[in-house]
Amino acid sequence: MRTFFYPQSMVVVGASPRKKNLGHLIILNNVRLGCKVRLYGVSSEEGEIAGIRIYREFASLPETPDVALFITPAAAIPDLLEECGKRGIRRAVIESSGFSEFSRDENDALETKILEIAERYGIRFVGPNCIGIVNYDLNLVMPFLLYKQSLPGGRVGMIAQSGGLGHIYLEGLPENSVRPGKMVSMGNKLQLDETDFLRYFLGDEATDMVVVYLEGFKRGRDFFQAALSASKPIILQKSNRNPLSASIARSHTAALSASDDVVDGSCRQAAVIRVEDEQEAIAAVKILQQPLMRGRRLAVLSRSGGHAVITADACSQYGFDLVPFPESFFERLNTLYTRRVIAPQNPLDLGEIFDYRIYARILEEALKLDCVDGALFNHVYQSHYESDMSRTFLGELDSLVRKYNKPAAVAVITDAAETMEILKSFPVYTSPLAAIKALHISATYAERKELRDTRGEGGGFSLSPPSLQERLAALIEEKRHPLADECIDLLEAAGLNFIRSIKIKQIGDLEDGAISFPVAVKLLSSQASHKSDVGGVRLNLPDRDALGKALEAIRTSVSERAPDVSVEGFLVQEMVAEGQEFFVGGRQDPVFGPVVVAGLGGIFLEIFRDTAVRIAPVTRNEALDMLSGLQAWPILQGRRGQAPRDVEALADLICRVAALLVDAPRIAEIDLNPVFVHRAGSGISLADSRILVALEEENQLKKRE
Amino acid sequence: MRTFFYPQSMVVVGASPRKKNLGHLIILNNVRLGCKVRLYGVSSEEGEIAGIRIYREFASLPETPDVALFITPAAAIPDLLEECGKRGIRRAVIESSGFSEFSRDENDALETKILEIAERYGIRFVGPNCIGIVNYDLNLVMPFLLYKQSLPGGRVGMIAQSGGLGHIYLEGLPENSVRPGKMVSMGNKLQLDETDFLRYFLGDEATDMVVVYLEGFKRGRDFFQAALSASKPIILQKSNRNPLSASIARSHTAALSASDDVVDGSCRQAAVIRVEDEQEAIAAVKILQQPLMRGRRLAVLSRSGGHAVITADACSQYGFDLVPFPESFFERLNTLYTRRVIAPQNPLDLGEIFDYRIYARILEEALKLDCVDGALFNHVYQSHYESDMSRTFLGELDSLVRKYNKPAAVAVITDAAETMEILKSFPVYTSPLAAIKALHISATYAERKELRDTRGEGGGFSLSPPSLQERLAALIEEKRHPLADECIDLLEAAGLNFIRSIKIKQIGDLEDGAISFPVAVKLLSSQASHKSDVGGVRLNLPDRDALGKALEAIRTSVSERAPDVSVEGFLVQEMVAEGQEFFVGGRQDPVFGPVVVAGLGGIFLEIFRDTAVRIAPVTRNEALDMLSGLQAWPILQGRRGQAPRDVEALADLICRVAALLVDAPRIAEIDLNPVFVHRAGSGISLADSRILVALEEENQLKKRE
Repeated sequence: MRTFFYPQSMVVVGASPRKKNLGHLIILNNVRLGCKVRLYGVSSEEGEIAGIRIYREFASLPETPDVALFITPAAAIPDLLEECGKRGIRRAVIESSGFSEFSRDENDALETKILEIAERYGIRFVGPNCIGIVNYDLNLVMPFLLYKQSLPGGRVGMIAQSGGLGHIYLEGLPENSVRPGKMVSMGNKLQLDETDFLRYFLGDEATDMVVVYLEGFKRGRDFFQAALSASKPIILQKSNRNPLSASIARSHTAALSASDDVVDGSCRQAAVIRVEDEQEAIAAVKILQQPLMRGRRLAVLSRSGGHAVITADACSQYGFDLVPFPESFFERLNTLYTRRVIAPQNPLDLGEIFDYRIYARILEEALKLDCVDGALFNHVYQSHYESDMSRTFLGELDSLVRKYNKPAAVAVITDAAETMEILKSFPVYTSPLAAIKALHISATYAERKELRDTRGEGGGFSLSPPSLQERLAALIEEKRHPLADECIDLLEAAGLNFIRSIKIKQIGDLEDGAISFPVAVKLLSSQASHKSDVGGVRLNLPDRDALGKALEAIRTSVSERAPDVSVEGFLVQEMVAEGQEFFVGGRQDPVFGPVVVAGLGGIFLEIFRDTAVRIAPVTRNEALDMLSGLQAWPILQGRRGQAPRDVEALADLICRVAALLVDAPRIAEIDLNPVFVHRAGSGISLADSRILVALEEENQLKKRE
Repeated sequence: MRTFFYPQSMVVVGASPRKKNLGHLIILNNVRLGCKVRLYGVSSEEGEIAGIRIYREFASLPETPDVALFITPAAAIPDLLEECGKRGIRRAVIESSGFSEFSRDENDALETKILEIAERYGIRFVGPNCIGIVNYDLNLVMPFLLYKQSLPGGRVGMIAQSGGLGHIYLEGLPENSVRPGKMVSMGNKLQLDETDFLRYFLGDEATDMVVVYLEGFKRGRDFFQAALSASKPIILQKSNRNPLSASIARSHTAALSASDDVVDGSCRQAAVIRVEDEQEAIAAVKILQQPLMRGRRLAVLSRSGGHAVITADACSQYGFDLVPFPESFFERLNTLYTRRVIAPQNPLDLGEIFDYRIYARILEEALKLDCVDGALFNHVYQSHYESDMSRTFLGELDSLVRKYNKPAAVAVITDAAETMEILKSFPVYTSPLAAIKALHISATYAERKELRDTRGEGGGFSLSPPSLQERLAALIEEKRHPLADECIDLLEAAGLNFIRSIKIKQIGDLEDGAISFPVAVKLLSSQASHKSDVGGVRLNLPDRDALGKALEAIRTSVSERAPDVSVEGFLVQEMVAEGQEFFVGGRQDPVFGPVVVAGLGGIFLEIFRDTAVRIAPVTRNEALDMLSGLQAWPILQGRRGQAPRDVEALADLICRVAALLVDAPRIAEIDLNPVFVHRAGSGISLADSRILVALEEENQLKKRE
């Protein structure tokens, strides 16, 4: 992989010596920037571009280049790649477009052909439909866009599915005082994908952090595994957030964990920093160049009162704590200047100080405080007379944050031209809100990384005994999903305990004393996936008599509301006396493999969508983190005279469901709903479950986003 | 008020002819910009500044100026204002700081003095602690900041509490292609306030829209009344969003409608556009200069595939509908250029078109479509060769949006220097997300304005009969809040009907047959504001025997958990068989007067805070809008086999509670919780209520944010 970024030699295939085509432009770019790679061209015409020799055939090349860059029409690629293979070239970057991105039918054949040739010669390739690789360490620029200036190589690695976005990062970083390092645009990811490049950057000594733009994961689970053990920050901009088609998740609970929720959950789990857009990605890079914010106690210094108020709002919105400054801090300030009317508070108003030398000293005093984890400075100024002083002040920023090992975000509020200039030189932000968001990224990353690195080990459950496997195999044989009573049997075989349930066909089947009243009764039917939709559930039946009437009522309701639904029996269950309704479920996600979902149950499930998703398996700490991230967490903790709930038992269930989905991949989907969570120490009660089995092998991890 | 903005003459008080003090700078600014107002100065020294004569005394001025601008130390203001009054000057702008903003105790006296002098002479004044007024129609600039360039007057009025923010609007608008019109910075708002200036701008023929920055309302209710009938867009940036102190709202339901929720609710009610920050305020101004978006069907045209994906995400996030383009649209496109590989879809990828003349034509074809309410164009370009063409293309934007009476937001994605330049000339945005947010502002404003203007009339309830007034008076006399049973009596006197409730002291008080079992029982105690906190509520008691035991259990629980809480009796109520729990409440808000709150009840109230607030009174349509804005709205509509709920009855209750708070201002707070909402047509059941009365007159609308 390193050869792609540090080749000794490269041939551009499709660079015309006469016409200013895209290949021509690529060679010009590299010559102009002083690229340290030996360059050649191959084209239908011989000649020269800016001193670089263009050959008619691969065979004529004076050496075997490390990399071949293709920028020819798509149809020509297979033959050229074949030649390239014969010449012994083992790395290719295919920038040409006109493949599956345009028309899936015609061009899939082209892609299949390319893959076959590459495999035959052992060629690794990037693309097609991309702008290739940039490495400023070598001034190597493969994109066919115009590059005017050379930049000293920085330490940010970038992986972009879209060339347009990759280009925006490349341009946006230096406009924001950050030197880009390496960039790869992956295009159609026909062979090499985001996980390959992520692994490379995580191991690359010249890279400190990785920015990733994706429209979809090719190997979500592998990407996640790589991220789980990453020591470098990974910043992810993931677009294409529309939910996966409804057919993927048939049972409604798990359907709530639509693809984007899985991405969010796995990011939280692996401490991947997910950002909203390019601006936020760049802000993340800027703040992560500083030491991390290892707490949420913030010192705010502000040259404008209005901006201090706006900052306080943002602090409250993003969970920062405006700690009171200690008396000693103000005593130190008194040695720096004569305070007149400044109130001794946080945010500290610097409106009366016009000596810029003092700003850095006050900022230093704030960073020095043990009770402060980071600082924010609102720098409101007029460029026509405060421009130089601002640069002197900001010049001290870097050494201060390193000295005290805490971040400091400066919001510059001035005119547009000055803002553009100052952004180029210093890692500052353009509003208090932007600065707070950046600090929030830093603090959140520190928190998540800590959680990730202390997540512990999985439970070591063995949840897929032979009896379970046999039952699953039988269902697959019969090409059907299990009924409600069979689900309970399956899950009890896996070691989960349900409340007492008895299957009957009519009231006479129920032996006296077999169950304690009151009971609930539920329709058993392979055609009714949502029993309550057809009136198939009756609760709180006090005695045998009421139960008998309920059975009749269900039969009547079904025949009226869904005449084509067969009544295959009834499940009679003891009522659960007490407990808060949650749900736990999971599925085999087509992109991420087994995932587990948990959240608030009952009728509010679909309204508030208060759920958490993680990639399975999960540890106890990860399960607890799922629960503590729910809006409903205070309910589990107990409030307003309510008893705390048995969080440990619920977390244990989450771990078990996750483990089961890992151990039994033929379970396509599980939905335990409701799960009654009792008082702390009293455990949980499972009342109902739905399981879908993977009836066809193809369901497994084949489908890609 | 017009005199403040269009004075014939103005005197600057405190402009030194020798020193370059702030007053000096103000005169220089106005001379430099060619201010069309006759200028004078008053200072302790005579002299001249840039041709403007400075006098020692008001008496020496050759005429009585329309406005006096004060920029002297605070302590000098009272005497100077007195002189000013004697000279017959009736308008003052006091920019000096050093008043209540620094130290409330010392300077309140100064403010009181100024108010008294102003009243004596009939002087209207702005400030203190502000940067005054700007009117580019006259090139009149009162702020003590440096202004270099004159601008032709625009049609945007600005009202800013903070001078810093006012200055940012003044600078930010022209950097975003918008000509600012008039600005007033209000500072401490000692006399004239936001409502005065809002009314002026709403009536000013040279103003099309009003931008307001506030840290607090001085007269929230009046501001809201003015906004309710405004025909011009009002854009509000309101900071200082921390909740009011807990003591204001003692009962927890109404406390959820913290001040910021009231601001949000009143903005929705009055179609005020509330924005997050300055950037969003400026984006709102830009989009509202175009025709409104009168629906959510959007056409997206994109020069980059990656940005098309990002735009589709943003559309889904902000509720826009990417309508399929009709076949006729593509037929028209075929007459414009030869389509090669562009897929016929929305977003439409323009990646293969490099002829800029075609862009405007395609945009026109999209705007022309009946199925489209507005358009978004992603303009990704490289400035070094597409800069001129971009300007030609964007030059057509204004005439296109007017011709088809629909908005079109263009996102320009290019380098920073070009972005800054193009923003100055065209109302464009810097990312697809920013463009979508702008269109969302336009569409939301159109929707809210429609709702506001069709809200209808209030119910004409008469909810404060003498019996209610007498009961309230008695409580105030006794200096206490009503107990649960008294609350029910009060509200039944106001015409609200509760479920059958009987007050008893012991089980023997309950006559046989007086109530139908099952029942609930609730503790009556003036010391326990949250009955369930002390175990004072028991539900579902099937018979007299169980009720008796429950009374004992409550006594035991109270004596254990809250021994200082007295047991004054019990309220026995029939259980409600069915119904979804909501709540309706309200209070006398210190800033906005009577407000009404409604939302989802039960244990989720505090978790999800799914509530809506409006300023009372409300019409039926406004009450329905409250409910339809709740996340829980689908529950009211009925889903998953559930019956729709009686939304009309709930809306009626909201109107009645709102009317009651208006009619009976001595009711400080009402909390009806739970309100069981039955199936459509079956009404609602009120089970419990809490009322706080205003024990002291001062509670009424005196307290200001």
